[in-house]
Amino acid sequence: GYHSFSFFSLLQSVVSLPTSPSILVFSNETNTNYMEIIAEKPLQLTAFTLCMRVATELSGEREIILFAYRTNNFDELNVWRELDGRLSFYLSGDGVLFQVPYLGFLQTHLCFTWDSSSGAAAVFMNGRKSQTKIYRKGHTIRPGGRIILGQDPDNFLGNFDAKQSFVGEIFDVNMWDSVLSDSAIQGLFNWRKQDRANVFDWQFAELRPFGAVEVINVDPI
Amino acid sequence: GYHSFSFFSLLQSVVSLPTSPSILVFSNETNTNYMEIIAEKPLQLTAFTLCMRVATELSGEREIILFAYRTNNFDELNVWRELDGRLSFYLSGDGVLFQVPYLGFLQTHLCFTWDSSSGAAAVFMNGRKSQTKIYRKGHTIRPGGRIILGQDPDNFLGNFDAKQSFVGEIFDVNMWDSVLSDSAIQGLFNWRKQDRANVFDWQFAELRPFGAVEVINVDPI
Amino acid sequence: GYHSFSFFSLLQSVVSLPTSPSILVFSNETNTNYMEIIAEKPLQLTAFTLCMRVATELSGEREIILFAYRTNNFDELNVWRELDGRLSFYLSGDGVLFQVPYLGFLQTHLCFTWDSSSGAAAVFMNGRKSQTKIYRKGHTIRPGGRIILGQDPDNFLGNFDAKQSFVGEIFDVNMWDSVLSDSAIQGLFNWRKQDRANVFDWQFAELRPFGAVEVINVDPI
Repeated sequence: GYHSFSFFSLLQSVVSLPTSPSILVFSNETNTNYMEIIAEKPLQLTAFTLCMRVATELSGEREIILFAYRTNNFDELNVWRELDGRLSFYLSGDGVLFQVPYLGFLQTHLCFTWDSSSGAAAVFMNGRKSQTKIYRKGHTIRPGGRIILGQDPDNFLGNFDAKQSFVGEIFDVNMWDSVLSDSAIQGLFNWRKQDRANVFDWQFAELRPFGAVEVINVDPI
Repeated sequence: GYHSFSFFSLLQSVVSLPTSPSILVFSNETNTNYMEIIAEKPLQLTAFTLCMRVATELSGEREIILFAYRTNNFDELNVWRELDGRLSFYLSGDGVLFQVPYLGFLQTHLCFTWDSSSGAAAVFMNGRKSQTKIYRKGHTIRPGGRIILGQDPDNFLGNFDAKQSFVGEIFDVNMWDSVLSDSAIQGLFNWRKQDRANVFDWQFAELRPFGAVEVINVDPI
Repeated sequence: GYHSFSFFSLLQSVVSLPTSPSILVFSNETNTNYMEIIAEKPLQLTAFTLCMRVATELSGEREIILFAYRTNNFDELNVWRELDGRLSFYLSGDGVLFQVPYLGFLQTHLCFTWDSSSGAAAVFMNGRKSQTKIYRKGHTIRPGGRIILGQDPDNFLGNFDAKQSFVGEIFDVNMWDSVLSDSAIQGLFNWRKQDRANVFDWQFAELRPFGAVEVINVDPI
C-alpha cells in the first residue's frame, strides 16, 4: 500500500504516526516546516553512528541541512551537504568535511560515524566508506537538546533560513551511541535487519511535525 | 564454464536454450534481430515489477529500447533509455520519465515498478530507488500481446528502427504482477534468491530468437 | 578500536601484523615503500580472481599501480589504473583494458578475473561487472615470483618510479586460483563471508613491509 498524509500542526500537537516505515517529504523550500525526533536516551555521546536515506532534486550550489541536534547554546551535531557538494558534520564548532560523489537524483544511503577516543570520523555513501579523518578527539556531545529534520536552528528551535532547508525525501533515520562496523553499515544499505538503533530508531521513534510535513507510509519490508 | 552460441533462426524455429542463466548479446545495430519471451501467464496487469541487467557501449544521444510488450494496436508497455539519458516507460500513451545517472559501461541492474491503484511508479538502479511519480492511476495493461527484447515494434512485431535497437548485453529479465518491496529489489541487485517471478522468470522462460542473437551461457550461480 | 602502526623496516625484517583485518596506508608518493605479500601456494595459474579495496586521493592523469606479481624476467601480472582512468591488467605482455567509472574518493571494491581456457577477462567495480573481453587464451602465469603492493617493479623488486606508485589506502586483497561467480563477487563487495581465498587471504597472509608503510588495524567485522 501507498498512503500519504499531510500534517498542518499549527497547534504543535504530538502526532502518532502510522506504523513505520514512513518517508518524510519536504515538498517546498520553507523556513517553517520541520520534524522533531524524540530520542529514547539522552544524547550524551562520545561516539555515534547516524544513518539516513535521502533523495533531493536540489542541485547546484546550495547548502542542505540533513540533521540538527541543538542544545540551548550549541549546535551539538549538525550534518550538512555543503555548497560544493561535500558532506560534513559539526560538533559545536568547526566541522569535518568529506569529498564524496554528488548526491544524485536516486535515494542515497548515508552514515556518519565518529569516535571520541580516537577522533576517527568517516562518511559512508551507499555502504562505501570515505577516507577516515581525525576530528574532535576527546570531545563529548551534550545531552538535553532537541533533534530536528528539515531546518537548521540558529538558536533553540528558531531562526530558520529557507535557503538551507531540506527539500525532498528523508527517512530511515537511525542513531547508535557507538561506531558500527563497515560491514554492518554496508548491511544497513542493503536493508539487512540489524539490532534496534539505541539512541533512536526510525521504526519506533516518536516524531513531532511542525508546519507542513508530508508523510508517506509504506508497507513493512 | 563460458560458452557462446549464435542463433540464425531464419526459420523462426523455437530454440530451447541451454540451462540458464544466459546472457543475450546484441552485437550490432540492426532492425532485424530480437528475442521473444514467452510469458507464463497473460499480461493483464494492474501492477508490475520488471527487472533486468543491461550493459551497453552505446553512449551519447541515442534512444535505446530496453523492453517492449505490444498487443495488436497498442504499445502496452515499452521501456526506454531516452535521448537525454533518462529512463522511462510508456503504458499505451504518454510515458513517465525518471532522471537517473547515465547508464555506464558496467552492468546495471534496473527495476521498474508501477501500481494502478495508487499510480505510484518508480525506477530502481542498482537497488537505489528514484523519486516516486504518479502515473496512469486506474489503468490496466491488456493481455494477448508479445514481449520482445532488442527492437521497438511500431506495429505488431514489425517496422523496426535500427537507431532505436538495443546493442549490448541484456539478461536476468524477470517480471512480477505486483510491486516488490524496496528491500526485495535491493536483494535482487545483490543476487539474493527470490521466489520465482510469476509473469516470466529468466531462469525458466522460453525464448525465441529472431535474426542473429548471441547467447552466452554461464555456470549456475 | 582504531589503532595505527608505522613500520620502518630498514632491516627488511619480517613483521607479524596485528590480527586482521588491516588497512595499508601509503601516505606519500615514493619509490621506496611497498608491502610484499607471501602467497600460500605457487602462482602457477591458468585462472584467477584478484580482489581488493582501495581509496586514493590521486586524481587527474596519473598511472597507479594496484598490484604487481613479477618473476625474474617477467611482469607476470600487473594491475593498473591507466592514465585515462581505465582499469587494466597485463600478463607478461600487452594488457587488457576496461572502461569503468573513475575511481572516486570513496573506498572502491575491485575484482579482476581471468580464465585461460576461454580467455574470458573481466573487472568488477563495487560488485558490478564490466563487459567480458577475450585475452591471452591458453596462457599460464609462472610461479616463483614475488607479489608487491605500492610499487611497480621494472626488474626483480627494484627500479621503482614514484610517479607510478600507489598513494592511499589498500586492503582486503585476496586471490583465488579460479574465477568466482558474479554473485560471489557481489557478495565479497557486501562483506559476505566466503571460503578462505586459496592463493593468499588478507586475513591470514604474511606481509613484509619495505620502507614506511602505515598499517591501520581495525576491529574484526
